Amino acid sequence: MRVELLTIGDELLLGDTVNGNAAWLGQRLAEIGVEVTRSVVVGDGLDIIIEAAEDALSRAEAVITTGGLGPTYDDLTRDALAKAAGVRLLRDPALEERLRERIAASGRPLKPMALRMAEVPEGATLLGNPVGSAPGFRMDLPGGVVYALPGLPHEMRAITADRILPELRGHVAGQMPLRRTLRTAGVWESVLATRLAPVEALDGVRLAYLPDPAEVKIRITASGPDAGVLLGEAEELARDLLGTAVYGAEDDTLDRVVHRLLSERSVTVAVAESLTGGLLGAELSLMPGASATFAGGIVAYSTALKHSLLGVPADLLDRRGAVDPDVALAMAAGVRERLGASYGLAVTGVAGPDPQDGQPVGTVHVAVAGPGGLPVVESPLLPVHGTDGRTRPLIRRMTVIHALDLLRRQILGVAATHEWADGLEDREETA
Amino acid sequence: MRVELLTIGDELLLGDTVNGNAAWLGQRLAEIGVEVTRSVVVGDGLDIIIEAAEDALSRAEAVITTGGLGPTYDDLTRDALAKAAGVRLLRDPALEERLRERIAASGRPLKPMALRMAEVPEGATLLGNPVGSAPGFRMDLPGGVVYALPGLPHEMRAITADRILPELRGHVAGQMPLRRTLRTAGVWESVLATRLAPVEALDGVRLAYLPDPAEVKIRITASGPDAGVLLGEAEELARDLLGTAVYGAEDDTLDRVVHRLLSERSVTVAVAESLTGGLLGAELSLMPGASATFAGGIVAYSTALKHSLLGVPADLLDRRGAVDPDVALAMAAGVRERLGASYGLAVTGVAGPDPQDGQPVGTVHVAVAGPGGLPVVESPLLPVHGTDGRTRPLIRRMTVIHALDLLRRQILGVAATHEWADGLEDREETA
Repeated sequence: MRVELLTIGDELLLGDTVNGNAAWLGQRLAEIGVEVTRSVVVGDGLDIIIEAAEDALSRAEAVITTGGLGPTYDDLTRDALAKAAGVRLLRDPALEERLRERIAASGRPLKPMALRMAEVPEGATLLGNPVGSAPGFRMDLPGGVVYALPGLPHEMRAITADRILPELRGHVAGQMPLRRTLRTAGVWESVLATRLAPVEALDGVRLAYLPDPAEVKIRITASGPDAGVLLGEAEELARDLLGTAVYGAEDDTLDRVVHRLLSERSVTVAVAESLTGGLLGAELSLMPGASATFAGGIVAYSTALKHSLLGVPADLLDRRGAVDPDVALAMAAGVRERLGASYGLAVTGVAGPDPQDGQPVGTVHVAVAGPGGLPVVESPLLPVHGTDGRTRPLIRRMTVIHALDLLRRQILGVAATHEWADGLEDREETA
Repeated sequence: MRVELLTIGDELLLGDTVNGNAAWLGQRLAEIGVEVTRSVVVGDGLDIIIEAAEDALSRAEAVITTGGLGPTYDDLTRDALAKAAGVRLLRDPALEERLRERIAASGRPLKPMALRMAEVPEGATLLGNPVGSAPGFRMDLPGGVVYALPGLPHEMRAITADRILPELRGHVAGQMPLRRTLRTAGVWESVLATRLAPVEALDGVRLAYLPDPAEVKIRITASGPDAGVLLGEAEELARDLLGTAVYGAEDDTLDRVVHRLLSERSVTVAVAESLTGGLLGAELSLMPGASATFAGGIVAYSTALKHSLLGVPADLLDRRGAVDPDVALAMAAGVRERLGASYGLAVTGVAGPDPQDGQPVGTVHVAVAGPGGLPVVESPLLPVHGTDGRTRPLIRRMTVIHALDLLRRQILGVAATHEWADGLEDREETA
């Protein structure tokens, strides 16, 4: 089955918005074995939308449009698709009532333009909108099916997940290659690829590496009549070869995995941050229910506060400065004690653009103090090239990932193996 | 002049890569007055690329392609464009020599495939590549001009800036519209649009609204022979009408503006956070040199820590819970005092998905305590629809923006006017 995407909006052509909707749809459709064969962006023009939709359906069986379903004069997708199908726009009474209720509940006056969102091309099937006002709909054009979705990402995603993916999945059942994604942190792509050579050698298996700062997703694809069995074997072999470097699969994120590990053990974490300014705490409080696992944190951005708020010995700070492994250890122990948490997790380092206390940009120490045994510190080598505007946020992000992964390994009671540590020396190369 | 973009690569259709190249090109071209009328993504197929390029040139005078110029078998843009023009691919001796030198210097063995990057369609003009191996080129097809660029963003950007923008600028000199972007926080699009009706009414002026969570960018476009004068008048009128709701222009961000205001006055801020978990501190430490303006913060995620770390009276917490305007005020005063900062900025609220202390999701209080006068608290109405996975991060982001904007207005000594506060009631509608 071939699908084309048609994204509608001047803001995309002007580059004010990056086309994240197309990327998200491409991923979701690929997961269910639907091939996106083309993705087109056009502006807010009636005839342009009509022509682009007809053009797409001359090649593909279905087109998914996003954008142009709002209440304003430049929201023209409804009008364009009705005109392309040669039908009228009808106001749907149930939609109108829901809109009037939403507006009345908010206490605002009703503007006539808003009721445009209750109009649907004659004969179209409504797809609803669980999280907003403008409903999606499906309709037939001479060349095939059109799914029309609003452009706001959370609305587009909700309708796609609820209505479109289940429908398309029915069309492709039984003929799709199977995919599995494993997630790793703190190890570089070239090291992973070297280790995974035996998986790559399996007949019918392909590997793809999708890097993020300090993380790599590994996508395993198996095809052929025994794809299911093959995929299982490939995943098992990959997990054997990678050991604890794999922190999760599919949509797992490191913050989610850490939250789950803490939650299962009924333990908590508190953070002491410096260069990350609060990002680590922000990550640990991302999950619903975070209050059960995340106590809080202290952002001791200035060196003096590392002493007064976290109890790092003043003479240690005097002798070594704030960017030091022992300072990280003292921060971890200090925040654990002062916030009464099971684990204290600390980061200190230099995000740049200038060196600090004689330490170069990219120097980072992450430490954890836990309920059993001595606190542990690691000083990951971050790949730092130049000090342009991208470097600082990148160093902060990589620091957060390394800290979360250190905490994960401490909770699980596993360390990075010596073999992996050797791999670290390859890091610079692949940055 | 009309230009279409043609981005080539399976990874874009699969959604593994977001089409940042198209957004960047759209922005750069808009800046010099070139209109991007369509942006198309196709996969790595010879005939597909040929058809898409010819199709684009049936509508536009020029097409810019990105991707498919590398050394591997699925890099097919060179071959496709040569076939479309009915010419041969020729190996360029100077390019071949440069490639051989680059590879020899790196110590890698020369693979025959790499020499594909020295091939160019007969009659094409080379555009060079100051930062990589695969050169861009320009060539004529029956329908118009094609600029072919590599897909790696830094290479694509360098060649565009060096060669393409100067060339296109020549075509549009003297006829381009002028643009100015104003940035606002905490006021909704519909309220801004109502207030800016007199600007919209100016002949030759258009307004566009680009919303982000709790922020709106307003783009003013002036065209015609007196575009420069007109743009100045429109901006002045808009600033008069919007007053202190405008926090900056063009690339200003709220964290940057706040950092500048603090820095100019040699004052500092410390933050006390709850639902945002550290995001506010992360924002205030984003700028290089943040250590001069950002002291640090306390993330009192649990209610008990609001008392022990920030000195919020225990009986207040008992009576009202953690989500309360007076708790926010006490947090702001507490963190200001304990961290010895000029300003204390605090947030408390309910990010969801569940209500807390009897308060509904989206209830937020932001407070600031400063060097002069009483602390101030505001309780912005956030537009909350449903409680899906997107709601929680959205509420946290909106809270951060409202807090930064409150701090900005306090430093400047200006308040949101009563008139604007009335406008808040329209918020639901445009969310």
